[in-house]
Amino acid sequence: MRVLGIDPGSIVTGYGVIEEENNRLLHIDNGGIFTDSNADYPQRLKEIYERLKLVVKQFSPEVMAVEDIFYARNARAALKLAHCRGVILLCAVHSGIDVCEYTPLEIKQAVVGYGRAGKKQVQRMVKTLLNLPEIAQIDASDALAVAICHIHSFRTEERLKG
Amino acid sequence: MRVLGIDPGSIVTGYGVIEEENNRLLHIDNGGIFTDSNADYPQRLKEIYERLKLVVKQFSPEVMAVEDIFYARNARAALKLAHCRGVILLCAVHSGIDVCEYTPLEIKQAVVGYGRAGKKQVQRMVKTLLNLPEIAQIDASDALAVAICHIHSFRTEERLKG
Repeated sequence: MRVLGIDPGSIVTGYGVIEEENNRLLHIDNGGIFTDSNADYPQRLKEIYERLKLVVKQFSPEVMAVEDIFYARNARAALKLAHCRGVILLCAVHSGIDVCEYTPLEIKQAVVGYGRAGKKQVQRMVKTLLNLPEIAQIDASDALAVAICHIHSFRTEERLKG
Repeated sequence: MRVLGIDPGSIVTGYGVIEEENNRLLHIDNGGIFTDSNADYPQRLKEIYERLKLVVKQFSPEVMAVEDIFYARNARAALKLAHCRGVILLCAVHSGIDVCEYTPLEIKQAVVGYGRAGKKQVQRMVKTLLNLPEIAQIDASDALAVAICHIHSFRTEERLKG
């Protein structure tokens, strides 16, 4: 199963592609979609949508796992983020792939085993779990974490079924 | 100038098309994009995007005027709405038309002349200004109000320039 994890952001949207093979996690790629901060907001949404579509085309994931919004954060920032998430979810549907959404708590729980883990702990765990040569840039690392979270959830569900 | 006003909503997205000719407002069309409440959220975003694209194609507006989010409302509802706004703004950019955004306060001010006007006052004023045979459905009426607001702002700017 190949999963594309997404950490949405209006300035940088992180993405990470991983694959599960025989119960092992393989890192395929990670990166960030940077938008032009001088462009107006609708144009930036377009940029995120178009660039993400290319990532989907390049890596052909079966699932897109997207980080959910943390409600307690600044209201204006959360609303901006929600606009980005809107076009990201649309991109998944237009690309014909399934979408799963996970809260920051679920992601930390799955990756570090502790829902209140810090950003750096998550980054280090992602590096270890995926055997990365170095710690990935923060948005890309968060995106890889969502992808790992999806694979863990999927495994657990399969076990419960079996 | 032909303007497409939009009142975004995850259940119903209202739209209204008006035209200004020789300083007179002409009503062209209004309606609502209803999404299937049983469908999952990404699918509903797709439905809004696709249906809105058809509206743009049918009426060829030069500008899309979109109602901004009222920050004080329920946080979860505001975030849902922001996802819809994301795909609506994307639809405008993909259709090659300009987007303008107006707050509820600006819209009421422009239509009723009073920023704290009630919903019904706005509906009645929209009916009067556009010579509608009857009061439009609430979401469509709100969308017409945004379009009227855009034309008023545009006129004011032109006068200031002239």
